[in-house]
Amino acid sequence: MKTREQDRAVHVPESVARRSFLGTACAGIAATGLGAALAACGEAPADSKSAQAKAAGEHQAAAPAAAIDAKTRYEVPPGQLDDYYIISSGGHSGEVRIFGLPSGRTIKRIPVFNVDPMVGWGITNESKKILGCKADGSLRYHTGDTHHVHGSYTDGTYDGKYFFVNDKLNARIARIRGDYMECDRITEIPNVQGFHGIFTDKRDPVDAAVNHTTRVFCGAEFHIPFSAKKADVDDAKKYACLFTCVDAETMGPRWQVKVDGNMDLCATSYDGKLAACNQYNTENGLVFQEMMSAERDACVFFNVARIEAAVKAGKTFTLGDSGIPVVDGTQAANADPKTALTCYVPVPKNPHGVNISPDGKYFVCSGKLSPTTTVIAHELVLKWFDGGLKEPRDAVVAEPEVGLGPLHTAFDGKGNAFTTLFLDSQIVKWNIDKAIAQYKGDKTVQAVVDRIDVHYQPGHGYSSMGETKEADGRFFNSGNKFSKDRFLPVGPLHVETEQLIDIGGDKMKLIHDHTAYPEPHDAIIVRRDVLKTKQVYAMSDFPHAVKKFEESGVAREGRKVTVRIASVAPTYSLPQFSVKQGDEVTIILTNHDTVEDLTHGFGLSHYDINFIVNPQQTASVTFKADKPGVFWYYCTHFCHALHLEMRGRMIVEA
Amino acid sequence: MKTREQDRAVHVPESVARRSFLGTACAGIAATGLGAALAACGEAPADSKSAQAKAAGEHQAAAPAAAIDAKTRYEVPPGQLDDYYIISSGGHSGEVRIFGLPSGRTIKRIPVFNVDPMVGWGITNESKKILGCKADGSLRYHTGDTHHVHGSYTDGTYDGKYFFVNDKLNARIARIRGDYMECDRITEIPNVQGFHGIFTDKRDPVDAAVNHTTRVFCGAEFHIPFSAKKADVDDAKKYACLFTCVDAETMGPRWQVKVDGNMDLCATSYDGKLAACNQYNTENGLVFQEMMSAERDACVFFNVARIEAAVKAGKTFTLGDSGIPVVDGTQAANADPKTALTCYVPVPKNPHGVNISPDGKYFVCSGKLSPTTTVIAHELVLKWFDGGLKEPRDAVVAEPEVGLGPLHTAFDGKGNAFTTLFLDSQIVKWNIDKAIAQYKGDKTVQAVVDRIDVHYQPGHGYSSMGETKEADGRFFNSGNKFSKDRFLPVGPLHVETEQLIDIGGDKMKLIHDHTAYPEPHDAIIVRRDVLKTKQVYAMSDFPHAVKKFEESGVAREGRKVTVRIASVAPTYSLPQFSVKQGDEVTIILTNHDTVEDLTHGFGLSHYDINFIVNPQQTASVTFKADKPGVFWYYCTHFCHALHLEMRGRMIVEA
Repeated sequence: MKTREQDRAVHVPESVARRSFLGTACAGIAATGLGAALAACGEAPADSKSAQAKAAGEHQAAAPAAAIDAKTRYEVPPGQLDDYYIISSGGHSGEVRIFGLPSGRTIKRIPVFNVDPMVGWGITNESKKILGCKADGSLRYHTGDTHHVHGSYTDGTYDGKYFFVNDKLNARIARIRGDYMECDRITEIPNVQGFHGIFTDKRDPVDAAVNHTTRVFCGAEFHIPFSAKKADVDDAKKYACLFTCVDAETMGPRWQVKVDGNMDLCATSYDGKLAACNQYNTENGLVFQEMMSAERDACVFFNVARIEAAVKAGKTFTLGDSGIPVVDGTQAANADPKTALTCYVPVPKNPHGVNISPDGKYFVCSGKLSPTTTVIAHELVLKWFDGGLKEPRDAVVAEPEVGLGPLHTAFDGKGNAFTTLFLDSQIVKWNIDKAIAQYKGDKTVQAVVDRIDVHYQPGHGYSSMGETKEADGRFFNSGNKFSKDRFLPVGPLHVETEQLIDIGGDKMKLIHDHTAYPEPHDAIIVRRDVLKTKQVYAMSDFPHAVKKFEESGVAREGRKVTVRIASVAPTYSLPQFSVKQGDEVTIILTNHDTVEDLTHGFGLSHYDINFIVNPQQTASVTFKADKPGVFWYYCTHFCHALHLEMRGRMIVEA
Repeated sequence: MKTREQDRAVHVPESVARRSFLGTACAGIAATGLGAALAACGEAPADSKSAQAKAAGEHQAAAPAAAIDAKTRYEVPPGQLDDYYIISSGGHSGEVRIFGLPSGRTIKRIPVFNVDPMVGWGITNESKKILGCKADGSLRYHTGDTHHVHGSYTDGTYDGKYFFVNDKLNARIARIRGDYMECDRITEIPNVQGFHGIFTDKRDPVDAAVNHTTRVFCGAEFHIPFSAKKADVDDAKKYACLFTCVDAETMGPRWQVKVDGNMDLCATSYDGKLAACNQYNTENGLVFQEMMSAERDACVFFNVARIEAAVKAGKTFTLGDSGIPVVDGTQAANADPKTALTCYVPVPKNPHGVNISPDGKYFVCSGKLSPTTTVIAHELVLKWFDGGLKEPRDAVVAEPEVGLGPLHTAFDGKGNAFTTLFLDSQIVKWNIDKAIAQYKGDKTVQAVVDRIDVHYQPGHGYSSMGETKEADGRFFNSGNKFSKDRFLPVGPLHVETEQLIDIGGDKMKLIHDHTAYPEPHDAIIVRRDVLKTKQVYAMSDFPHAVKKFEESGVAREGRKVTVRIASVAPTYSLPQFSVKQGDEVTIILTNHDTVEDLTHGFGLSHYDINFIVNPQQTASVTFKADKPGVFWYYCTHFCHALHLEMRGRMIVEA
């Protein structure tokens, strides 16, 4: 197996240093010691070895006027707002993040599958209820692996109501409310491992009146035997994956489909009729070598209306103690197009990524181990289901050669596609119509129209509004897996490099690098007007709110003590309270401040308690008062000039 | 009590909108729809109400050439490195962060007191040992509240060896190794609550040859009765705080000092002789009103040499079951300057912050509730200890009026001080010599030489290398507690605004806003050449490393099973292993890749396990195999084109 460095050496001579190229191309500019705008020079760098680059430790300098003009167009100066939100997965950090675009500033971390003592996620009773607990009250999971965030749609574009994200590690799906931008529901999907691909539907396949998201589709990447019996565990033929439909409102799984092969990414059609997953390991191999043996894998399409009719008709079975209806979507059971629930379109082996074009016409699968992308026509897949196409492979209308290691494709809404090339460390821009013409045999056209180096090894790439019919073709973000010499060294663990590219013109322009804590995979870029957040909670959202200061106090019921506190900067309504050692104490805190951004914290010394209450919010914690003495609680979220003095004593009587 | 909004109204008419001011001052510039450089306009904005600003939702446009020049001087274009590291506390997120400066990019999160599933902090055996566990193996704490990061010194400036950070919530001090930039030690300090101020010493007070950090000083803000007896708990006179000296190498507490009043921030002299803490609540009040009653509080100075002589002489006592020697540093016990261990210099009530000037001459306390800062001469404090000064207050050499709500002061190394004004939302620049002349009665001088609005309510401010004798006067960062309308709305919880200011000229210049997840308090700005990080681990650092692939395998000892795995992209050395239900399983994983930035993850489905191994690193986890069946483990940290295929099966036999 070649190493990553060797892979790179395939196409770029190692002697050409990316950084030294930059230095040469931009020669003749004055040194300032601070570094300066070099947008024009950033467009065509060559490769680099980090050692060379770091040894240099050089700085570039004030750019010529033309370069400055190009650069400053993208600046977001103090006091100005960004044009877009980037809503991004946080990988195995377990969180979701919001960046501003074009600034690249992180404007929120949303704790989802992780524990976050800042907000009290995993600490408050409210968040523990969402996360799920064991019988002893401790959290069921402290880990999660988010990959893909997708929003709810109305009429083919984001409606800002919900965002959904997967947990590949523990097979969970989470929902984020678009008003408060907080996670409100988490569902564990039964009989699934490696839940990787996720996508919202865009309309109902049957009821044309339902032109908004009601389902979320969930692919599973790791096939399992659905049994702990040795005979099943040892027999690869017993292994399979489930494709799951989750209800976007109730967050309950509606149905599952048993599928051959491992499902990777997921996409949905604009007419609601099809969902698709690219597949590797259609060999059903259990080890690496087996997963790579076949020359072709597939992109599997799900006929949503037929599956739901089959479920309604009771043509289902169940697995283990899960009551969720499962239909058989394997190839063997779906040979007849006229009744098939699934259609497996062959694509070059071990593909990665499937994305649909904003006009709804084409699904694009990336080759990963093949230097091609495969374009599959939506209408031809439907034609196959209608019995009008001989072979599933006939739905392929183009397969342009784009470069080494194609992974994911985004769109500009003007007929162009932008594919990340992991091995080439490039973004390649290609024209869909030209690719189709080329595939048909027209030798006068070239599908690839531009390419740009990125730094280094891009995974996902995504464009502004690119997964909606409002794709506007302004920005593309390349999520690069390696940063190496791009930022100051901080030890063995590196951040990722997110590179912003202007795709508005014929040539792509690299604008800037920003950083991301590992490991964002995918993201969506959402126009700022789409989100309509609420900036202050409604006290009535919380039935247990301490609505008046006079309601503050301590109530005892046996060994259970409830302490009700209100806060207004810079004081808590209770400057002290007493409990007895061994009591189970519940503290309920309501923030009575109404001013936006005036958040209070509640930290309880040595009791491992911290959480915040935003304006008008209520939160609670429950713990055992197992240590006697005086324990100060204090405001941990800076609130006022007298913030330090905002504190009180919990007295635990021995 | 006035609200924050009312406080602001004191000095700025509400009708003047900061944002609309910007719009007016920069009139005549072309609209681009993207926003552009407005550095020149950012210098003198007035105030704003968030509602007004948000309603506008406006964007500024391409700036005139002069403004662009000013702006682009600070840009860090793609491929260029920053000039400085900002090493910042993360407040109640429990982490430490590293930003690049001037870009504002987050280049690392260092998990310290929090749980971070991305790296496996709080999940691996190695990190759990550092964090500390209960008898059942679960973590003792999941929360922490970091406030102040300070580095180790040699010869008055950072040596890059260590960085230390406090946990106010659970009274712990953590150390970060400067080579790998990871936390390697955490110590809980006994008999302390509200451990807030922390500072490294800069040399030994007695042995001139020791001109580097050997001690870390820790202040305590919350006074406690050191007893759970009702009589003690109810008697404010029994309450006191301890000042603690921790050994920088062993991380063990060396000695403690019993002190009157609550200690807030901490500073140390360049000659090693003095440590200082500003104090509020010298009244020893238990509730808010009592804490505010006295007109003056204090800045307490510790005579380090005398304290250590007293400890050596055994003039100590102990508290509870802590064996740490404690000396009496209360005012009553230290009335005679000639033998005093402590000196309480009166300053206006409830001060916040104490900082020493880079020339080592002056300690500056901020007034918080007084519009002044108090300048205390280091040599005069020493003179008091020598019996040469009548009253401690005589050590005050200046008390300039700077504005409302002064909190923290930074320095440019050229004789100027920069103080954050929380209530005025400003940074005020004042000259120390002028302030001293003014205090002496010279009515011709004005101490304040410049002021600039920030957005909004700054807490800490810090300058480039400003806490060393190499203060270079280039940058000042204002850590603002409220962001309100500065960034796109994302629900009730706001990020903080970090504003970068150029302090190189006579007038301060606002350069840009970046964001910080709540809640950074303090930070230090470190020149890039100071840090000499290692970018790849040494395998020999890990005694339990799986040094060769042939060492991979499963070893059983009763119900304890050890699984040894090595990784090289894109494979684990074990594609599968079997254990029995009920086994205690320890997995040891060594990353054999040597390429910088080539990190692997290890996620184990449904077993709540995830951690990473950086190049040449070894880490381990231990868990009970309580669920039978097949559980895929997979690489969670993107490593290779075949990263998705990098996985294997744990088979748990029923």
